[in-house]
Amino acid sequence: MDSTFFTKFIMITSINTLVFIAILFGIFFGMRKFEKTKASFSKRMIISTIIGLALGLLVQLVAGFPGDTVDVKWIGEVVKWYSLVGNGFMDLLKMLVVPLVFLSILRVIINMNAKQNLGKLTTRSILVLLGTTAIASIVGIIIGNIFKLGVGVEAVEGKAEMKDVISIVDTLRGLLPANPVKAMADSNIVAVVIFAAFIGIAIKRLSAKHSEVIKPAVDLIEASYKIMTSVAKTVIRFMPYAVIPLLSNTIAGKGIGAISVVINFIIALYVSVAVMFVIHLVIVALNGLNPIKYLKNVVEPLILAFTSRSSLGTLPVTIDTLTKKVGVENGISSFVGSLGSNIGMNGCAAIYPALMSVTIANMSGTPMDFSFYAMLVVIVVISSLGIAGLPGTAIMSVSVVISGMGMGAYFPLAGAILAIDPILDMARTMLNVNDTMVTAVTVSKSLNELDKEVFVG
Amino acid sequence: MDSTFFTKFIMITSINTLVFIAILFGIFFGMRKFEKTKASFSKRMIISTIIGLALGLLVQLVAGFPGDTVDVKWIGEVVKWYSLVGNGFMDLLKMLVVPLVFLSILRVIINMNAKQNLGKLTTRSILVLLGTTAIASIVGIIIGNIFKLGVGVEAVEGKAEMKDVISIVDTLRGLLPANPVKAMADSNIVAVVIFAAFIGIAIKRLSAKHSEVIKPAVDLIEASYKIMTSVAKTVIRFMPYAVIPLLSNTIAGKGIGAISVVINFIIALYVSVAVMFVIHLVIVALNGLNPIKYLKNVVEPLILAFTSRSSLGTLPVTIDTLTKKVGVENGISSFVGSLGSNIGMNGCAAIYPALMSVTIANMSGTPMDFSFYAMLVVIVVISSLGIAGLPGTAIMSVSVVISGMGMGAYFPLAGAILAIDPILDMARTMLNVNDTMVTAVTVSKSLNELDKEVFVG
Amino acid sequence: MDSTFFTKFIMITSINTLVFIAILFGIFFGMRKFEKTKASFSKRMIISTIIGLALGLLVQLVAGFPGDTVDVKWIGEVVKWYSLVGNGFMDLLKMLVVPLVFLSILRVIINMNAKQNLGKLTTRSILVLLGTTAIASIVGIIIGNIFKLGVGVEAVEGKAEMKDVISIVDTLRGLLPANPVKAMADSNIVAVVIFAAFIGIAIKRLSAKHSEVIKPAVDLIEASYKIMTSVAKTVIRFMPYAVIPLLSNTIAGKGIGAISVVINFIIALYVSVAVMFVIHLVIVALNGLNPIKYLKNVVEPLILAFTSRSSLGTLPVTIDTLTKKVGVENGISSFVGSLGSNIGMNGCAAIYPALMSVTIANMSGTPMDFSFYAMLVVIVVISSLGIAGLPGTAIMSVSVVISGMGMGAYFPLAGAILAIDPILDMARTMLNVNDTMVTAVTVSKSLNELDKEVFVG
Repeated sequence: MDSTFFTKFIMITSINTLVFIAILFGIFFGMRKFEKTKASFSKRMIISTIIGLALGLLVQLVAGFPGDTVDVKWIGEVVKWYSLVGNGFMDLLKMLVVPLVFLSILRVIINMNAKQNLGKLTTRSILVLLGTTAIASIVGIIIGNIFKLGVGVEAVEGKAEMKDVISIVDTLRGLLPANPVKAMADSNIVAVVIFAAFIGIAIKRLSAKHSEVIKPAVDLIEASYKIMTSVAKTVIRFMPYAVIPLLSNTIAGKGIGAISVVINFIIALYVSVAVMFVIHLVIVALNGLNPIKYLKNVVEPLILAFTSRSSLGTLPVTIDTLTKKVGVENGISSFVGSLGSNIGMNGCAAIYPALMSVTIANMSGTPMDFSFYAMLVVIVVISSLGIAGLPGTAIMSVSVVISGMGMGAYFPLAGAILAIDPILDMARTMLNVNDTMVTAVTVSKSLNELDKEVFVG
Repeated sequence: MDSTFFTKFIMITSINTLVFIAILFGIFFGMRKFEKTKASFSKRMIISTIIGLALGLLVQLVAGFPGDTVDVKWIGEVVKWYSLVGNGFMDLLKMLVVPLVFLSILRVIINMNAKQNLGKLTTRSILVLLGTTAIASIVGIIIGNIFKLGVGVEAVEGKAEMKDVISIVDTLRGLLPANPVKAMADSNIVAVVIFAAFIGIAIKRLSAKHSEVIKPAVDLIEASYKIMTSVAKTVIRFMPYAVIPLLSNTIAGKGIGAISVVINFIIALYVSVAVMFVIHLVIVALNGLNPIKYLKNVVEPLILAFTSRSSLGTLPVTIDTLTKKVGVENGISSFVGSLGSNIGMNGCAAIYPALMSVTIANMSGTPMDFSFYAMLVVIVVISSLGIAGLPGTAIMSVSVVISGMGMGAYFPLAGAILAIDPILDMARTMLNVNDTMVTAVTVSKSLNELDKEVFVG
Repeated sequence: MDSTFFTKFIMITSINTLVFIAILFGIFFGMRKFEKTKASFSKRMIISTIIGLALGLLVQLVAGFPGDTVDVKWIGEVVKWYSLVGNGFMDLLKMLVVPLVFLSILRVIINMNAKQNLGKLTTRSILVLLGTTAIASIVGIIIGNIFKLGVGVEAVEGKAEMKDVISIVDTLRGLLPANPVKAMADSNIVAVVIFAAFIGIAIKRLSAKHSEVIKPAVDLIEASYKIMTSVAKTVIRFMPYAVIPLLSNTIAGKGIGAISVVINFIIALYVSVAVMFVIHLVIVALNGLNPIKYLKNVVEPLILAFTSRSSLGTLPVTIDTLTKKVGVENGISSFVGSLGSNIGMNGCAAIYPALMSVTIANMSGTPMDFSFYAMLVVIVVISSLGIAGLPGTAIMSVSVVISGMGMGAYFPLAGAILAIDPILDMARTMLNVNDTMVTAVTVSKSLNELDKEVFVG
């Protein structure tokens, strides 16, 4: 017990741990130099991604590409210390989410031209989010069948457990801000949006007759918003540094053994995400934006989402990018960004459960026909709405969809896939963030609020 | 496991569920039309109550008046979906409680004439609340004996368990705002009141010499208050819609079987509440207000309390009604309303434990004489103060009173009564809200702050 | 079960309980009279300490100096009721901590002269805190050996359990404000400081170009700060009353039996604290302040820390005293005070674990040489940083240090010492608060921000 206790406290028991901490510092020192060469931010982000990948592989190489990384204690320690920089940065981004969303939603409503726009904005956003979700689930079904996922796979004994069920009704009620302070403390973003919307509408209505009385509140909102965006700017500056440990941790933390078993599924998921990504770019083009230029402009939130695997943490960067580089009106960026972090996630709540359903159907010998696929799309769309805001979106979504397809009893077959979840999560999260941005572009365009001059830069 | 899981998620397994959801929407559509006929708000509330009752009975009728509604799955589903509208509305009202109470208390203190009024206001409020509590317990004792509650009843085996004890000292310390943000997040209303009082007193004192420095805070409080009351107005507009599913859920959710066993107790409680209600009206008359007119003016919070069974959720409506229809000064409304939601609840903490004590004494053969009754009144009053702010007021109150009377061992005898608690809770909560309003009237009158012109309308 | 339940609720079962509650009220009445004689606040604090001590001993005397106070039920009741006044007062002080720290840190940064000062302030504060921690651990080692702690003591069977381990990395990440509202609700002071620092830096930067936009926020911070310090003043006025039940509770609550077993350890700890206190005074003198005058000026936070055993609760008094009586610039007071409540506690995280290590080494026959002592100092300093902000600092610190010294298996030997922890905690907490103040003086002096005119008075 003794040494274990102190070891767990200090988290450095091997020379390898120290060496890799030193390597990270060395890289940071080099990047600091590089930063002064005035290299563009996007370029530095891409370089960080490459370094992060290389660093993760280096850890694996030094450890001799172990079958299971749990056997190599120092990898766990390196991952832990790297998380201090990587996830510590994500903590600071998350710090901004609640005040930024609250203040942005207030501002968008206060500054709205006509009152009915809020309703339009909400319905259109949800429609586009659910529409792309449906498309994404179809992509998942097709790719899953092309890859013949689960066909001929021996049913392995797994420990996968389905999440406890929460009814749609309870989920929806959980989105209501029954106590706004608690909603803020719990990072319940949809509840914060709804609370802010109520206050914003009240301010808007009062501004006609009582503008003198409420002026202090309106001015404070404006001032606070200015301050919070300035804080966001400060934090975001450090993003290229954080990307390196974030990505290398995901690469370093999973053994070759675990990956090789389900390599087929991993490839299918990455292919599905890539196909859906192309569809996203087509939608962008249909909105009159050059998709290549779009890609260049949004590379930062995409890389952060890919490496951090947190839609919510990426939110401040997503909003910032949509506003300053894509030309979406700031209020719409915040609004769609907040909704999209919770509703209609193309990656986590559509492609992933679709691929899983195909896999488990094949493993369990469940026959699949057109009605199976049609029902799958419907259930994916319903569940993507019904699990909005719950933690563990991906596993929750799979639980609901699999049981909705009547295959809940076979869920444990998916154990091997769940074991390498972080590797899948990178691609899924990136797609989630991109569908949020594509939705923002589409809704913005339909409301004539897309500023092409900003986009062209 | 399979189907259960998805069923629990989607909560629609029967055509009955769908039909009743459709019926509710149909009713809402009709009410929307009716709203445009400029029918008064109170009238619409009363009509909603009748519709809610009828709808609840219709559910029971369709299910064939089952002995135990747990056997009928679709009733649970209808209740769940109805709760999305009914309790969802209550969530929005609860959203307003913390900011509204915080801002109101600040305002009342900042705008107070003489500094000592706060002490007077507090002591008088608590005195009237505890005084009516004592009277209510006597009413309960008398009616309980008239109805011979528990006499000749075979002791049924119950599963009733007393709540864990929390000492008076711990309860009182729990009311202190050791962390104001946590107190707000926990909806700890008395703590919010105390925190606001400290800040209000400080602002009042500083306003003499440093009015320039603190002006931004004072102006912001005024602006925020204006905004929050405007939000309250928006939410309250939907009350007639919410009352229908709230009431029908209570009626639909309890089987005839459970009710018939304890019908005698239910009637005794409703009679006791009615008697106490008359006493409340006498107090109102003694304060120089016409009791019939009073009833007309306060029908909205009473109906909401009856149907929602939540004193706290009703609080924004209670404050609004006291201020705008009864003529109580707004600060006093907020202050007494906040205290009365926690202290001296005539229904939950006086009549109910008194009736329970008589019942259990008769069931267990405990002799009752004058000293028994005197002690019962004393214990009811002490416990009504000692459990202030704890969740589950009614069951907590009964636990403390029964054990204080030395009958704790017989508590399980009350199991059958606890099983139909929601039906009792409707009347109790309505009485709680009314005693809060009567206290506000009395204290307001004694401080010469009752505006009869508002009352007359 | 019956009587127990109500007894636990009402907490008065003996005439002794009532008598001692009456005695406390009598003392308060006398102090109220004494307050009007214009006796100085410090004088009244010292008199309260003496009365509190005497009252605690009186409780013990009436109970016949029991071996174990758990056997005497009414002592538990008196302690409970006394805690309503004593700890209730501490609750009100704690209420101020989060808003006061948040607003003070904002102000200090907004009003800073040059931008780089914040970095200097942080590094110097941490250096001095860790430096005094190292010195304190050496004092503990020397005194522990002089007292031969644990030598010849039969190994008693204890139930002491080490705290669950939390790694340094997790501790540090716990200090980041991933959700500022949650950090405030959890009284996570370092996180509040960091969040405030980010906002303060943003305001500072914006004040050049956008001063008009952010003015409402800056003015509100100034107004809120003024209000909160006024609230603090109101609460602090009652300190002499609260000190009496706080101190008497610690004295009354521990039996002679428990104390006599470990009297040697108690004396060693108090001697160590006294020695370290003298070293603190030397540091004060080196900063050019008269140590006797210093002692007179800071007697209030020291007494409150001693009697309340809460560094955090004492924080508002510590900040107030540093600013108004020692002459430390207000921002530095808040900043160092906040850090010092979490990092480098001389009493809890240095002297105490050092004494414990020596005791357990002797008890278990672990040989001690120079390398043992050197390693002990290093581990104490590391752990004092690594456990920052965790609850139960002292026991956490001992757990980490003992296991770091390879003696975790012998931890249960310390059971008898842990049993009388409150008596040790008084001295430890006082020393913690004093090292915070000494650090503030030292850092303030090094930044040329020490106002000697305030110090001299």
